[in-house]
Amino acid sequence: MSSHHIVRDKQEPALLIANGEACDPELLGQLLEWSPFVVVLDHAIWRVFELGIKVDVLLGDFDRDVDLDAVRERQYPIDIVHAPDQNKTDLEKGIELLIERGFPAVNIIWATGRRADHSITNMTNIVRYKQRIKMVLHDDYSRIFPLVGTFEKWYEKGTPISLIPVGVVDGIVTSGLLYNLHNERLTLGYRTGNSNESAADGFVRISAGEGDLLIMECWD
Amino acid sequence: MSSHHIVRDKQEPALLIANGEACDPELLGQLLEWSPFVVVLDHAIWRVFELGIKVDVLLGDFDRDVDLDAVRERQYPIDIVHAPDQNKTDLEKGIELLIERGFPAVNIIWATGRRADHSITNMTNIVRYKQRIKMVLHDDYSRIFPLVGTFEKWYEKGTPISLIPVGVVDGIVTSGLLYNLHNERLTLGYRTGNSNESAADGFVRISAGEGDLLIMECWD
Repeated sequence: MSSHHIVRDKQEPALLIANGEACDPELLGQLLEWSPFVVVLDHAIWRVFELGIKVDVLLGDFDRDVDLDAVRERQYPIDIVHAPDQNKTDLEKGIELLIERGFPAVNIIWATGRRADHSITNMTNIVRYKQRIKMVLHDDYSRIFPLVGTFEKWYEKGTPISLIPVGVVDGIVTSGLLYNLHNERLTLGYRTGNSNESAADGFVRISAGEGDLLIMECWD
Repeated sequence: MSSHHIVRDKQEPALLIANGEACDPELLGQLLEWSPFVVVLDHAIWRVFELGIKVDVLLGDFDRDVDLDAVRERQYPIDIVHAPDQNKTDLEKGIELLIERGFPAVNIIWATGRRADHSITNMTNIVRYKQRIKMVLHDDYSRIFPLVGTFEKWYEKGTPISLIPVGVVDGIVTSGLLYNLHNERLTLGYRTGNSNESAADGFVRISAGEGDLLIMECWD
């Protein structure tokens, strides 16, 4: 695991650092292990520099006092992308930039915690990109990703796995969970698959018909 | 503000303490100011006792090592409600208990933060009770409540106000916001009213047709 080729063939997931709550440095370290392409959103840049992280792209609308000259002084070269569209969040703009540049996958951190409005928006807005890039949103208590096609993964018995519908999701079929779903509907606010878990050491399979389902692996 | 009648006519909101991330003690202190009826969920009880708070009801399924004898030893009397229904979260059970006991309103804390699955489920599941009890979910960065009828409140200019649809909400009409909605639809994951704000010192009005809308007052 320790020979760091800095050859980037865009096969490794990029790392997108948003500006919510910082995660445990150990999680950050794991995600930096393979020297990913790093995109930082707006005024998170100084918190990222303080951690000694080399940044590839800084993206934002820069309407809140980001001194770009000071940024360039701190790290040169750096690709600064001005993205002023007020109809999109910085996270959406960051994901779209990575899609445009051909990345197949992205790990996203610092996108949850603190403000509830940003947190729920970031968690749920990723679904609109699910056909175009593989995304996993990480924080100290959660790994969140949208269901695309059929999900299949081996888990140890008792691993918490929650199924959270972004609105209404029909035709959900699972196997390997403690509470399996048999062509059922989940509706956010009314019936979600919160706090399910793997029934045994073995594979969990999840598929769905219409709608956007988030799979969340969480722990206390 | 200092003459504490402990006459409880159920006109004051109850306080429901869930078992997510603890809030700032100052927020807790404000919510305890009028000696509300206090309901604590499951294994949060010891964290609450450590803060010296008198508890009225402890509610939970008690499947994870809550020693009820030790609880009674610490505070007596205490109303212990065993609620084993696995199809409901502890938060839902707590809200239902307060509805049954005739409370018109409840402040909810420690229901967000940490695990993303619990956080999004707690934020959104409150909508199913919106016609039966007034609810406000508080944390250190957010006040969250469901829209019921027409919402009207005076805000200082520039106060962040986010409109988050729990699924799809139609017919949203606002006035007094920087980006007003004119009989429009919001859809979670695709188009939300995240990071709106009051346009001036004055009233903000929000109404909607079909669907469940959360109003979030958030700050950094």
